Amino acid sequence: MKTLELAKDLISRRSNTPDDAGCQELLISRLEPLGFKIERMRFGDVDNFYARRGTTGPLLVFAGHTDVVPTGPVDKWHTPPFEPTIKDGMLYGRGAADMKTSCAAFITAIEDFVALHPDHAGSIGLLITSDEEGIAINGTVKVVEALKARGELIDYCIVGEPTSNKVVGDMIKNGRRGSLSGKLTVKGVQGHIAYPHLVKNPIHMVAPAIKDMVETVWDNGNEYFPPTSWQISNMNGGTGATNVVPGEVEILFNFRFSTASTDENLRERVHAILDKHALEYDLEWEYSPPYITPRGNLVEAISEAIQQSYGVTPELSTTGGTSDGRFIADICKQVIEFGPLNATIHKLNECVAVADIEPLKDTYRITLEKLLTP
Amino acid sequence: MKTLELAKDLISRRSNTPDDAGCQELLISRLEPLGFKIERMRFGDVDNFYARRGTTGPLLVFAGHTDVVPTGPVDKWHTPPFEPTIKDGMLYGRGAADMKTSCAAFITAIEDFVALHPDHAGSIGLLITSDEEGIAINGTVKVVEALKARGELIDYCIVGEPTSNKVVGDMIKNGRRGSLSGKLTVKGVQGHIAYPHLVKNPIHMVAPAIKDMVETVWDNGNEYFPPTSWQISNMNGGTGATNVVPGEVEILFNFRFSTASTDENLRERVHAILDKHALEYDLEWEYSPPYITPRGNLVEAISEAIQQSYGVTPELSTTGGTSDGRFIADICKQVIEFGPLNATIHKLNECVAVADIEPLKDTYRITLEKLLTP
Repeated sequence: MKTLELAKDLISRRSNTPDDAGCQELLISRLEPLGFKIERMRFGDVDNFYARRGTTGPLLVFAGHTDVVPTGPVDKWHTPPFEPTIKDGMLYGRGAADMKTSCAAFITAIEDFVALHPDHAGSIGLLITSDEEGIAINGTVKVVEALKARGELIDYCIVGEPTSNKVVGDMIKNGRRGSLSGKLTVKGVQGHIAYPHLVKNPIHMVAPAIKDMVETVWDNGNEYFPPTSWQISNMNGGTGATNVVPGEVEILFNFRFSTASTDENLRERVHAILDKHALEYDLEWEYSPPYITPRGNLVEAISEAIQQSYGVTPELSTTGGTSDGRFIADICKQVIEFGPLNATIHKLNECVAVADIEPLKDTYRITLEKLLTP
Repeated sequence: MKTLELAKDLISRRSNTPDDAGCQELLISRLEPLGFKIERMRFGDVDNFYARRGTTGPLLVFAGHTDVVPTGPVDKWHTPPFEPTIKDGMLYGRGAADMKTSCAAFITAIEDFVALHPDHAGSIGLLITSDEEGIAINGTVKVVEALKARGELIDYCIVGEPTSNKVVGDMIKNGRRGSLSGKLTVKGVQGHIAYPHLVKNPIHMVAPAIKDMVETVWDNGNEYFPPTSWQISNMNGGTGATNVVPGEVEILFNFRFSTASTDENLRERVHAILDKHALEYDLEWEYSPPYITPRGNLVEAISEAIQQSYGVTPELSTTGGTSDGRFIADICKQVIEFGPLNATIHKLNECVAVADIEPLKDTYRITLEKLLTP
């Protein structure tokens, strides 16, 4: 049960994002005796580290984060969120599922694997950040930039995000949609509502453009992705006064897009719709790329490992939000995500089943064996 | 120059709406010696009074208000707003144009008229409130209700609002559009933006309905009114988070409508459009009626009086916001509004030209002569 013990040790550290609270040094203290070369990479106020055992290819990297989301009201937890507690077969604590148990299982899987295969093929790596739950500017993306700059490419990457849905093992993420956000400010001419000939109402002007956007089929998705979706999250216009037509309206919208579209193409099509309606506007974009890992030896290896460890055949999925996998995909052709049940993540009383912990370690270990032994 | 002196006396009283600050008692002290019967009508925190000289018809009522809008930043005024000051031929002070000079001219016109025609035909009335610039709940509307309850109808009413546009005398308001406001809450289903199949985006759903409203020709106006206009003043939806589709969106809209439409018909048509788009919504209405005074003996009398006093032929207009005329029209078939230039009202350095004051008194006096002498 050394995975459970390590997970508890990690949970007891109050690593509210982006604070690492000593988690990474704990992991490093386990990796150094195994012959890992450790690189601490602090960017801004964010602790990250990259560790590697071996110098040859293929390179398999486990990626994860030590930071956690805020607990919410502590008095509504059944147990203190930073005091890992086992109750009715469940391990409770903030980060239990997202993703301290996965981090612990990375370490113990590697320990077991190295003990059995000290002269394994290729290399094992770890890429750990403490800024996945926050703004994610000084975390994985910066480490990947550093690796890319020196030409260090990754062959396989397993991100320990909690991807399981109903039972552990039922779902692997082999990609994520991209996210393209726009902050649109449509400009009109403000004025008194009793003098409509002197105003240009930006809400009136943008409504037909919104209708067009909603009716647009951006793409039909593909084998791995659902169709691209477009949604407005916020729309605000008005002075508060009920007799004044506002001079502008602000709209925040977001695409979740598949590899069937490119962000350039989506941007162009949005501009074309806005221009067709002769709108005067400002538009600021924010972009996070999609990634996809087609079926191949990583998907095959971890699927078999899951089957052996949990007796479950995983389904491939690209649903849900973004993850650090999008950054790693820039230097790695095969990135997948696999970890515990996601039912309690970011919620009160986050937990994992104790019985699911050792099979997680086994899954990671078996995957190492399939990919890094002859 | 007794009109000027009375106007200055009124301006020096800080009657920030709805505070009367003694203005009405000052007016009453001038009316009592003329044989007016005074009824003080305080509703809530609002002072109003109704005064009448004579018991027979026709009854001509001067209507106005003693309250003023806030001064705005006092240090940006050239002269202190509550210290009436004459500079370069202009009388400066808050309320100079809206509408203390008109109130002063009502009194001095009546004084002159009664001196010349102590046994005039019909009756002269005054309906003065201190809540025209505020929420207007305990002002003119309540006085009118009291008069209506006892069957006291008005034949002619002159409201002293500043209706002149470029030169004094160029514009009479012989009506005002109605105002019909709606607070629309369109309901959807909130959810994470990455799971579009689980949400119903109320902003997306309402956009085509807005488009339909904007494209609707509500009416084409009529002889006295421009076409009815519909405008959104405020539209707000969103949780602030950029990854959440909101559960509802709130829209405040307003009709300015002519007598070519009725409020019932406009309400029905809005509901029909919303229902056509299968929206789930709440809609709260607020309503203020239009009024119109067709050409007739009041319009004719005051137009001639203006011509004699200012040498200007007034145009009839129904533009602009609402006024207390809408309430009085409930018990009076002929309501018109006439007063000083409106260029500086509600602004810094509100003013009227001193040379325009005595002709205003004359206009009101001549109108009395035309309507209340044989």
